[in-house]
Amino acid sequence: MARRLSLDNALWLLLVFVPVAIVLEYVVHASPVALFLTSAIAIVPLAGLMGKATEMLATRVGAGLGGLLNATFGNAAELIIAIFALRAGLGELVKASLTGSIIGNVLLVFGLCALFGGVRHSRQAFNRTAANLGATMLLLSAVALVVPAVFYLIGGASGSAALETAERSLSLEISVVLMVCYVLALVFSLGTHGHLFEGTGGSSHEPEASVWPLRRSLAVLFASAAMVGWMSEILVGGAGETAETLGMSEVFIGVIIVALVGNAAEHSTALMAALKDKMDLALNIAVGSSVQIALFVAPLLVFLSYAVAPEPMDLLFTPLEIVAVAIAVLVVGQISDDGETHWMEGALLLAVYAILGLAFFNVP
Amino acid sequence: MARRLSLDNALWLLLVFVPVAIVLEYVVHASPVALFLTSAIAIVPLAGLMGKATEMLATRVGAGLGGLLNATFGNAAELIIAIFALRAGLGELVKASLTGSIIGNVLLVFGLCALFGGVRHSRQAFNRTAANLGATMLLLSAVALVVPAVFYLIGGASGSAALETAERSLSLEISVVLMVCYVLALVFSLGTHGHLFEGTGGSSHEPEASVWPLRRSLAVLFASAAMVGWMSEILVGGAGETAETLGMSEVFIGVIIVALVGNAAEHSTALMAALKDKMDLALNIAVGSSVQIALFVAPLLVFLSYAVAPEPMDLLFTPLEIVAVAIAVLVVGQISDDGETHWMEGALLLAVYAILGLAFFNVP
Amino acid sequence: MARRLSLDNALWLLLVFVPVAIVLEYVVHASPVALFLTSAIAIVPLAGLMGKATEMLATRVGAGLGGLLNATFGNAAELIIAIFALRAGLGELVKASLTGSIIGNVLLVFGLCALFGGVRHSRQAFNRTAANLGATMLLLSAVALVVPAVFYLIGGASGSAALETAERSLSLEISVVLMVCYVLALVFSLGTHGHLFEGTGGSSHEPEASVWPLRRSLAVLFASAAMVGWMSEILVGGAGETAETLGMSEVFIGVIIVALVGNAAEHSTALMAALKDKMDLALNIAVGSSVQIALFVAPLLVFLSYAVAPEPMDLLFTPLEIVAVAIAVLVVGQISDDGETHWMEGALLLAVYAILGLAFFNVP
Repeated sequence: MARRLSLDNALWLLLVFVPVAIVLEYVVHASPVALFLTSAIAIVPLAGLMGKATEMLATRVGAGLGGLLNATFGNAAELIIAIFALRAGLGELVKASLTGSIIGNVLLVFGLCALFGGVRHSRQAFNRTAANLGATMLLLSAVALVVPAVFYLIGGASGSAALETAERSLSLEISVVLMVCYVLALVFSLGTHGHLFEGTGGSSHEPEASVWPLRRSLAVLFASAAMVGWMSEILVGGAGETAETLGMSEVFIGVIIVALVGNAAEHSTALMAALKDKMDLALNIAVGSSVQIALFVAPLLVFLSYAVAPEPMDLLFTPLEIVAVAIAVLVVGQISDDGETHWMEGALLLAVYAILGLAFFNVP
Repeated sequence: MARRLSLDNALWLLLVFVPVAIVLEYVVHASPVALFLTSAIAIVPLAGLMGKATEMLATRVGAGLGGLLNATFGNAAELIIAIFALRAGLGELVKASLTGSIIGNVLLVFGLCALFGGVRHSRQAFNRTAANLGATMLLLSAVALVVPAVFYLIGGASGSAALETAERSLSLEISVVLMVCYVLALVFSLGTHGHLFEGTGGSSHEPEASVWPLRRSLAVLFASAAMVGWMSEILVGGAGETAETLGMSEVFIGVIIVALVGNAAEHSTALMAALKDKMDLALNIAVGSSVQIALFVAPLLVFLSYAVAPEPMDLLFTPLEIVAVAIAVLVVGQISDDGETHWMEGALLLAVYAILGLAFFNVP
Repeated sequence: MARRLSLDNALWLLLVFVPVAIVLEYVVHASPVALFLTSAIAIVPLAGLMGKATEMLATRVGAGLGGLLNATFGNAAELIIAIFALRAGLGELVKASLTGSIIGNVLLVFGLCALFGGVRHSRQAFNRTAANLGATMLLLSAVALVVPAVFYLIGGASGSAALETAERSLSLEISVVLMVCYVLALVFSLGTHGHLFEGTGGSSHEPEASVWPLRRSLAVLFASAAMVGWMSEILVGGAGETAETLGMSEVFIGVIIVALVGNAAEHSTALMAALKDKMDLALNIAVGSSVQIALFVAPLLVFLSYAVAPEPMDLLFTPLEIVAVAIAVLVVGQISDDGETHWMEGALLLAVYAILGLAFFNVP
């Protein structure tokens, strides 16, 4: 517990970056790199606050609705960042951060869990049925990403205007299919087969000393969401020039940095669970979050893009993004398949993440 | 039983479309769309009749030879349709319908089985060894499709005439390998390891009140095969114009419609089995039929194409077809891997089928 | 035992090809084809001698260091051949032989083991945990091969000089990651989780009548290594013209022939183990050898190429090579997944190897 608390405290200390970012933006007019970095760090504890408030709210309203709340607002910080990026016309950055969230959760987070959990516990077991369903839903996500790209690739010969229209309707239709699957998955995991997931989703924290009152939960949720939005605007504004100044590609910024910012708080929860040998919970957070990004956040952004973006977003990811997601899905499927992990499997997950990260970094 | 009979009866009622198609073709000279649709519907009960006659024949001749008969004539209707399409020079339509049969069986049929079976039965278990072998044979099928395409792709730089010759010999050689595997699989499943498949293949129906006499079985088999041939000629003749009139691509017609027509009767058997919680049988029909298409029907058509087609058929499928088969194989491998299904896995299989179907539909 | 000894004896008889190759090269000045074939055959027993000497050395120095020796020198013959090929500027041949070693071990060798072992024993079981880790490490190998190729592919549009520099640094960085993983895998399999691999790695032979003295082991090791080097120089010198004379592509020579030569002795050990129903050992040799090639030999060659080759070697394999490795990894993952094999699975592995071999052969 001591370790947990100190990590929590370190997280809340980061809140000091919220005023810092605001001062840098409106008073000092600092360089884009400084703005990008401070706003990025500021989002980490704000996303953590949103998660805590959501959870408190969920405790109040009972298991069923609470599960739904957790499932819907679990990636709210990322959604807010993405909406601001979409408004700024940075559709490619959004898609890169979606890719990065998916591979970051299943390779980096689950890899760290298996590695550090495995150093403490020689062999860590988990429920195969839940893991298998998660892996299958990830596979569906990969399918949804691969198909538009192949579709676009093979259509290279035909007229490009007709092709783009066809590709955009395909993206929209696939988004509907994904959203339907997400709703069905909620019915499955909260309703008909909830017992399979018992003890993995709800109790993500030790019993708290006190549950927040409803009003406080709502206030914290909305206040932190608003602050995430504010910070996102600063972050997105500085992304392009930061990439240029630091000599990184914009896609690397999206896949590795933006993707991690919105999830860092949640990641620490997964890691703590793994250290306590609760691999079911760790796997549930890592895979569940990826699935939510792919089946809920991505299609929602496609829909929203018609309202807020200069031009609609589609599901046409770059080949390297697609290959990265496909690899991540295959590797996690392979590793979770036998219902147990060792530290070496964690190291292999991190190695795959490193290889993909290096590839995104080296893109000329 | 009542449900089963009524579904059977509904099937036989469709036989009325046989004379309708004939009248439309030779008396009324109806539009290609009308001819295509009526002949397509007419094939459904005829293929069912062929299946029933084959099964009756198999009952007569004993388990070993019977299994061989079922395995060889199981997709005879599709084979007949494909031969008529080959004769008409529609090699691409044939390959599309082969693709459609493979993905239709493992995604649509097995998906419906897992979904509707899963709604009735919370958890449906099946034999992992048989499922694993089926998934491995499907993987081999995917390999046989992927390799010629990659081969062709990388050869893009070299002279196209030499490349095409090389690609055609490769297709022929791969066809021989596939056919050998099919024969070995029969030796395995009917001979040395028949016990693994016991109770899954033979008793696809409730014990019948009466077994047909040998002469009747043979007569029905040949008569229905001849009628399937006749209907196929009408179907194939109308396919091109139907695609144009309805604004669908020819590949969509092949992958989704032609592929379903020859299998519909068999599909209903699989679904009935799943509803009765006989998932071994359902999986065996779905995966077994796909394997038979890939390892027996496809190479046989390559061989036959040298005799009946204007130009030889190869195994060079389009990228979207290859990706569709690869995805189907991976997804069904993932889902069948743990030896049980839930309704959500059925929904995911159908979602993947829907995404692939949408892609084929949107091809400009 | 009688069978084993006679096969061993046959192996040693092949040593006669060592002086034959030397006479043909320096006295007779024979044709390149004759030189290529005799030196290839001469390497087979020399590689076997190296393996035997390494094992004797390992027995002397105790389990831990012995395992390390076996792991490091296990593919020394291949490494020596590759270094001579690199020096001759045949980087593509080296990459082809690496590909061939990986797919040869997991498809051909494991396929033969499962087929012939399965003919004798109806069902052969093995440890799933070890098999699963092997399959995961193979998947990492496939990732390391796929990523540079996709990276290069997508960069097609940008300036080719910048792209090549980027691709070369990526290869170097990935090589470091692979090497780190190899060291970690040794720590895992020899150190923290050695018990999982007990009885599979060490006792690859029946208890020998006599263990060689240390001096003899070292002498045989260095002498046979030197002879492998000599033969490799002759082999590499004749490879190009042999391919031309026999009408084979150079990549076929590398993938199928050169790859088999350095491994043949080891392959016979795996097959013997399978016939004795020791599938754990057979799988360990086949998969372990592939993993060692991918995670140790390949990155080591990248590093060495900066010292010995006319120009550095990268990890950019051809599309057909990548697809071959990816297919091999997926198929062996699928087959080893349920912890048992039957002869049919062996036949399927060989069929996949045959299809890939045919593709490499037909490359125009």
